[in-house]
Amino acid sequence: MPIQEKTRARDTCWLPEEGQGHRAEKVHISVVGNGFRLDTIKKVAQTYLPRIFADVDIVDAEFANVIVGTFADLGRSERVGHQEGYRIFADGSQLIIAGDTEFGVLYGFYEFLKKSQQGCPLLTMEAEDQPAMEVRMINHWDNLDGSVERGYAGKSLFFDNNAWAASDEEIVQYAEMLSSIGINALTINNVNVHAKETELITEKWLPQLAKVANLFDAYHITLFLSANFASPMTLGHLQTADPLDKRVVHWWKTQVEEIYKYIPTFGGFVIKADSEHRPGPFTYGRTHAQGANMLADALKPYGGVVFWRCFVYDCLQDWRDRSTDRAKAAYEHFAPLDGTFADNVILQIKNGPMDFQVREPVSPLFGALTQTNYVMELQITQEYTGQQIDVCYLPMQWQEIWSFDTHANGEGTKIADLLSSRQQDGKGKGVTAVSNIGNNQNWTGHPFAQANLYGYGQLAWNPEQCPRKIAEEWAKRTYAHLSAEVRQTICSILKRSWSVYEAYTAPLGVGWMVNTGHHYGPNVNGYEYSPWGTYHFSDRSGLGVDRTKTGSNYISQYKQPVAELYGNVATCPDELLLFFHHVPYTHMLKSGKTVIQHIYDAHFEGVEEVEAFLEAWEGQKEAMPDSLYMHVKERFEAQLANAREWRDQVNTYYYRMSGINDERGRTIYK
Amino acid sequence: MPIQEKTRARDTCWLPEEGQGHRAEKVHISVVGNGFRLDTIKKVAQTYLPRIFADVDIVDAEFANVIVGTFADLGRSERVGHQEGYRIFADGSQLIIAGDTEFGVLYGFYEFLKKSQQGCPLLTMEAEDQPAMEVRMINHWDNLDGSVERGYAGKSLFFDNNAWAASDEEIVQYAEMLSSIGINALTINNVNVHAKETELITEKWLPQLAKVANLFDAYHITLFLSANFASPMTLGHLQTADPLDKRVVHWWKTQVEEIYKYIPTFGGFVIKADSEHRPGPFTYGRTHAQGANMLADALKPYGGVVFWRCFVYDCLQDWRDRSTDRAKAAYEHFAPLDGTFADNVILQIKNGPMDFQVREPVSPLFGALTQTNYVMELQITQEYTGQQIDVCYLPMQWQEIWSFDTHANGEGTKIADLLSSRQQDGKGKGVTAVSNIGNNQNWTGHPFAQANLYGYGQLAWNPEQCPRKIAEEWAKRTYAHLSAEVRQTICSILKRSWSVYEAYTAPLGVGWMVNTGHHYGPNVNGYEYSPWGTYHFSDRSGLGVDRTKTGSNYISQYKQPVAELYGNVATCPDELLLFFHHVPYTHMLKSGKTVIQHIYDAHFEGVEEVEAFLEAWEGQKEAMPDSLYMHVKERFEAQLANAREWRDQVNTYYYRMSGINDERGRTIYK
Repeated sequence: MPIQEKTRARDTCWLPEEGQGHRAEKVHISVVGNGFRLDTIKKVAQTYLPRIFADVDIVDAEFANVIVGTFADLGRSERVGHQEGYRIFADGSQLIIAGDTEFGVLYGFYEFLKKSQQGCPLLTMEAEDQPAMEVRMINHWDNLDGSVERGYAGKSLFFDNNAWAASDEEIVQYAEMLSSIGINALTINNVNVHAKETELITEKWLPQLAKVANLFDAYHITLFLSANFASPMTLGHLQTADPLDKRVVHWWKTQVEEIYKYIPTFGGFVIKADSEHRPGPFTYGRTHAQGANMLADALKPYGGVVFWRCFVYDCLQDWRDRSTDRAKAAYEHFAPLDGTFADNVILQIKNGPMDFQVREPVSPLFGALTQTNYVMELQITQEYTGQQIDVCYLPMQWQEIWSFDTHANGEGTKIADLLSSRQQDGKGKGVTAVSNIGNNQNWTGHPFAQANLYGYGQLAWNPEQCPRKIAEEWAKRTYAHLSAEVRQTICSILKRSWSVYEAYTAPLGVGWMVNTGHHYGPNVNGYEYSPWGTYHFSDRSGLGVDRTKTGSNYISQYKQPVAELYGNVATCPDELLLFFHHVPYTHMLKSGKTVIQHIYDAHFEGVEEVEAFLEAWEGQKEAMPDSLYMHVKERFEAQLANAREWRDQVNTYYYRMSGINDERGRTIYK
Repeated sequence: MPIQEKTRARDTCWLPEEGQGHRAEKVHISVVGNGFRLDTIKKVAQTYLPRIFADVDIVDAEFANVIVGTFADLGRSERVGHQEGYRIFADGSQLIIAGDTEFGVLYGFYEFLKKSQQGCPLLTMEAEDQPAMEVRMINHWDNLDGSVERGYAGKSLFFDNNAWAASDEEIVQYAEMLSSIGINALTINNVNVHAKETELITEKWLPQLAKVANLFDAYHITLFLSANFASPMTLGHLQTADPLDKRVVHWWKTQVEEIYKYIPTFGGFVIKADSEHRPGPFTYGRTHAQGANMLADALKPYGGVVFWRCFVYDCLQDWRDRSTDRAKAAYEHFAPLDGTFADNVILQIKNGPMDFQVREPVSPLFGALTQTNYVMELQITQEYTGQQIDVCYLPMQWQEIWSFDTHANGEGTKIADLLSSRQQDGKGKGVTAVSNIGNNQNWTGHPFAQANLYGYGQLAWNPEQCPRKIAEEWAKRTYAHLSAEVRQTICSILKRSWSVYEAYTAPLGVGWMVNTGHHYGPNVNGYEYSPWGTYHFSDRSGLGVDRTKTGSNYISQYKQPVAELYGNVATCPDELLLFFHHVPYTHMLKSGKTVIQHIYDAHFEGVEEVEAFLEAWEGQKEAMPDSLYMHVKERFEAQLANAREWRDQVNTYYYRMSGINDERGRTIYK
């Protein structure tokens, strides 16, 4: 093949790679002042700038054409007014990259790197920016044995065989990737904290984690840990983990003191409590607030924070019980507790009321909390959205979620506004998301899944960005060495991929028609008679979940006019119809199709789209390295097989149920 | 509690236990002659007789009131005419237990033990018997790591952590149990022979297995091993396992020679080939006969035998493909090969064409083979029949299977006749069955599951026995220390249990409505869209599999008039209707009920029966030790929960499908 293959041990993703072609301009750069992250900038500059520019040198300020530093260190009076904000501008023959703090300078430098990668002439560069979200976090669900819960990119980056597995170089490369897209916090272990993982907060692990925390901190990324609420019992040999028990309180204070002795920059805990069999305050008749506040108290002297997950529901529901609705659980558990949480508790609320389905309404908890800090939890890893075999570009979904108008403070209270605290006294602190990273050479299994991580960072920084533009930017940076036509092919696929995935899987927002356990591939009845609260109630007449007043009345958790919009079958959007209503197969959608015909059409069209993806990819074979071509081709073939299985199982199931033929006479197996 | 608890490390099951109460008669026994199994008889006598009789002594013949030996050694002219047969009779003041060989004497002694246990006065004992089946085998599906495939009684009796785990005492006790019910052969490892298990036929294991083989041989039980067809590749580092390749042939001859050097009594191999991803001759374009005969050739000089399993089908079937029918597979693979197998090959054919469902027709391969040796394979372990949580007394099923008239040689060619070679030139050699034994204290998880092992041995010896009588005998021997009322309660439950299990699970012979993988509990669609060839094709109008001429024409594999009987919806027995026919929910059964009403009734009644089991058991609480009461009670409670889940899932599924109400208005969840 004429085109050079990537040679580094691991992909650089969107960051510049070796030998991607040099720009003629010289970059003589000076980083002014002293600081931990300023040192980082020098290192990043030395690593990446020579991959872009032929002539790169670190020089004294007087010889530099690029000057980097805080406004103060540069002796300038400008300010951005935000500690993570920056400005890039030309001043005579020099390009200035400056911020109020070294954090801002770091982000400014990454912006400079991005513009450099894209060929922008130095002195024309101009930018002023600051992040919309305060918290821009990543949650790894990695276990100490090296497995990753819901991981589809190999094993853990961090752990293997109950020991630390990552080299410093790997951590640095990962930190570079994360900070280059604005991520400023992460957890490295699974929210389901098992026996071995419980020990992470002890001296057994803290010396190692101190090193790791420091490596990340150099990139302005704060290390958090997922902790086991029952740690006082598991580690401290107490008979209780009651948050009001003095011995328990004391145990946590002592343990937190120990953590900060090793890791002064430690961020705090992420806690999954009283959820899916994890221990929590309920065991002792205490509230979530009592549980969270006890931990927050222990962390407060050090500036630490508790992220307390709201993914709490009855996972031993009886499918016969039509009065319980899992969708209502998070709101019912947490809305009444609003105002009772400590200042350094942040509730972590999943985007939807169920669990990262391809389509869900936005959780009504957003907008309901007015006196409690919170973040939104998203899932970058594609648990229910193709598992990094099927391509599914999720920023399309996130952007739609963040555009949702909660009407919390009247019309125009969008999720993005709430999370970025643009509302007065807003308590939204930002976002966190489950990582899609593993130890695969390309980090994410499917190389296109890198775009989900990239897009997450970009949107968390600025939710007003168009996800289509982000995809283009990602492709331009990641596949700089390939032709514009290849990139266009990739982007065209990415942009359609979420809709396509939705089309060939569970219809009209109903969700959960997946195989149990691993959650890949179709199983229409897989969760229908389960204890998980996940039903579609299909019968010979119709399907869908009545969550209106005649059903579970989940809709009442929304503000008006949202509740009315969803609650009325005439106004409920088609794509969420079956989430909110049980309707006959012959119900006419706003699209002008019946529900059953929509099911057939979407499933046939979804498969056709995947066929088109594969065909488009095959058309670019000659324009890319064999390894990339084959790797992605194999995944498209697997996706196509999956899409066909979805199409045929869902269509057959509903044909057998409804007895209604496809009006276009396509093949449905009887 | 007033009643003494069993105290031995492991239950004695139906063999006499310590302190069960002594009979007044003296037993002064003399074992005449020398022989390996005569020594065994002495040991068995010393172990068990003192538990029955207060006054037991081993004496010289002249002082004995019980004389044991071969007719020849006893200087008598009688003969049974069968090497495993025996006679028990009084001769003056002496009771004679004699056989043509020491094997027969051993079985005679067990009969004497049984009669002694049941209180029969010595000199009134009279019996003459011989086994109907030549092969009366047990197949363990034990793995070297200690797991048992489809095991529900703890871990393996034999292996743990890739080492031998059983003490000699345990093997002896197990051998006593098996030989006491006439078992004369066993395998100790899983038919799915994985990497570690492949090594069992090598010097690494043979010294240990030689000891084990000897322990079993003392009880006239021949040791076989499940072997990996690809052993020449795994162990011999050949590039092929082609049965016609000279190196492969040589490798097996050498390996078999090695085995017999250590174990002169070795029985041979059980082979699962070209089945569910196991290697086999198909890889090399060879037939099953070529594969089996190659192994048989290697074993022949030593008198060894190959059991070659006929459980061969396409386990990667496309559910969309209505032309393939898994039920047809065994016949299609093996019937055309009749006459091409070596004399020391025995085909091992599962009782039904699918896989150990609670109800299946008998495999049409029985009766189709006239020049090939075969045995029937049953499953004592309750994979699809309640997993030793739900009680399911399987001899009821087996007796029905064995009573089936194949019409192979005209009317009256029952399975029992074929297997016991009562037909002229018959090639049926007997039975084998998957073990339900594990390392639990009571051997079988549910104590009542002991009755399945007991009944298996009894029926293999004499298929004319009534399984109800066998249950009574088992209860009388096993629960000798309890009241007749308790035993009656147990027997009444056992006798109904198979019908009850059938009632609350998949209806009318259709099968496969189970959870995938582990096979416990309901999942109506669990296997409906799977690659396993296991479908019920339910739609809004009806259900069942058309295996008649208008469908897969599986029925044509049966002899007439069986094919006609099954093929005609008017004559097909209700209990197999959905196995052979796709019918509307409103189809009228011979019982006078519609199919849908039968589904509802059977499921409601099945649960009511389990409720009655539990109630009957609770009624006997005071009459038994707490440990037994609680152990069985907990299982009945679990069974009841399982039965209710089956009832409600199946009823709801078919209500949603059919829209037809229960005519008795009972609760069906909508």
